[in-house]
Amino acid sequence: MLDENVKSLAKGKNFAAFTTLLPGGQPMTHIMWVDADDEHLLINTEVHRRKFLNVEADPRVTVTVIDSTNSYHYAEVRGRVVEKVTGPEARAHIDFLSQKYNGQLYPAENITSERVILRIAPDRQRLN
Amino acid sequence: MLDENVKSLAKGKNFAAFTTLLPGGQPMTHIMWVDADDEHLLINTEVHRRKFLNVEADPRVTVTVIDSTNSYHYAEVRGRVVEKVTGPEARAHIDFLSQKYNGQLYPAENITSERVILRIAPDRQRLN
Repeated sequence: MLDENVKSLAKGKNFAAFTTLLPGGQPMTHIMWVDADDEHLLINTEVHRRKFLNVEADPRVTVTVIDSTNSYHYAEVRGRVVEKVTGPEARAHIDFLSQKYNGQLYPAENITSERVILRIAPDRQRLN
Repeated sequence: MLDENVKSLAKGKNFAAFTTLLPGGQPMTHIMWVDADDEHLLINTEVHRRKFLNVEADPRVTVTVIDSTNSYHYAEVRGRVVEKVTGPEARAHIDFLSQKYNGQLYPAENITSERVILRIAPDRQRLN
């Protein structure tokens, strides 16, 4: 299960540093929208992106959710991508995230390939 | 050389997501103070910390500096720790960082082992 405080940070209007591993193991980080269900952190990306190709090859990731109002308050979750969801659920979820962060639907013209939800199971959760 | 815009973000009062690699390759991320010289990003930590032990074993890191006023504006630097500086220079540098972020000297009682500056040379710099 996801820690309640981690979940609360991820469901709030906070950004996450999402780290995946490039071939060879060099870490790569993007600042991204984030969400959570009861057991996973959720990241929404597209299937042509480097970060997606990275987790296809190595599912180990770190998601660090930073409180927008206080950078000293953050949750670091080390874990693995355990499920990838494409199709209507992923398309609806990017609209949901866009509403949360920007108060409007996600611009359809911004979608290059196909949206995908990465479900990330925590191996270690740390709150600062 | 460090990109001028990356350098400017790192010299500002902005926080960095600092990612190192645990033994085995799982990424680990902390939100940290950051600084720069003309050629490197600078992170100040202590020699007993996991992140320092990590870079001793594998120098590959990612430093993602996020604009405090706009999370969509950030610099991702993938690189390597090329130098580690302990002693008076590292001790003075944590006071400098503390002044930048908190407007006061670093509390001496917070130091458990010994401060160390990690000099990080960029292999790839990306601005968002």
